[in-house]
Amino acid sequence: MKTTRTLSYRKAKKSDLPQLIKMLADDQLGTTREDSSTPLNPAYISAFEKIDSDPNNKLIVVEINNTIIGMLQITYIPYLSHKGAWRCLIEAVRIHKDYRSQGFGSEVFKWAIQQAKNQKCHIVQLTSNKERSDALRFYKALGFSATHEGFKLVLNVEN
Amino acid sequence: MKTTRTLSYRKAKKSDLPQLIKMLADDQLGTTREDSSTPLNPAYISAFEKIDSDPNNKLIVVEINNTIIGMLQITYIPYLSHKGAWRCLIEAVRIHKDYRSQGFGSEVFKWAIQQAKNQKCHIVQLTSNKERSDALRFYKALGFSATHEGFKLVLNVEN
Repeated sequence: MKTTRTLSYRKAKKSDLPQLIKMLADDQLGTTREDSSTPLNPAYISAFEKIDSDPNNKLIVVEINNTIIGMLQITYIPYLSHKGAWRCLIEAVRIHKDYRSQGFGSEVFKWAIQQAKNQKCHIVQLTSNKERSDALRFYKALGFSATHEGFKLVLNVEN
Repeated sequence: MKTTRTLSYRKAKKSDLPQLIKMLADDQLGTTREDSSTPLNPAYISAFEKIDSDPNNKLIVVEINNTIIGMLQITYIPYLSHKGAWRCLIEAVRIHKDYRSQGFGSEVFKWAIQQAKNQKCHIVQLTSNKERSDALRFYKALGFSATHEGFKLVLNVEN
């Protein structure tokens, strides 16, 4: 019997951070670049406070029955171009490994796209590493077009 | 004799908007999506005010001897990933048509990358339409890697 599991969404709290960092680290690419040791690296707390205090950044946790099963960050950016349109940038989307391949990612994205519409954004955009072939198929299935190159330049700076 | 022309950078002012909108419209792709009629479409003024009041968004004009020759928008975004690193997103870069192919674009980007370093960003990122083949070569020459797909989803919303 298929049970219905309802996703709920809320802003992340500081007390969620250990779980969120573990989710970021538990990933094909994230494992080498995150620090999931305890006590929590204070750089994460500082970053959380910056995100949390910025009205154009929303760090969201996704839950089923009060258990965190995913996360994402939405950034709303005002631009002059396209007649002064807001854009919505979605990054840092993760679904907990125990909950993957069950359609939750798609549901989370549909929710995020609706948030962008509510905010009157003309475009939702995101970049996805070309090594993540599953993700590329996933975004295309959601209606995204890979019209752009996503360029990155890594800088050598100290935290 | 080659003369030295020094670029200067400042935050855009509301009175710059007519010139900036013309620059956005005078472009291979921008011509169909901007409204450079006068009086200025109020959507641009509203967008300018949102950008100007957001400490993480910088709309910059580039000048030579008080003449605007270019523009760009820098967005600083705090993230949890990469140990809580700031990222710098650069978009809406334009060089006035009378000043193209003279190396100014490269100089503007080097300045922007330095701003990102000053802000302790770990990554500078941007998306560039795959139709802009000159731009793609330009970003690669600056050291950017096209490691990511830049996905866009255009939404049908009313301004």
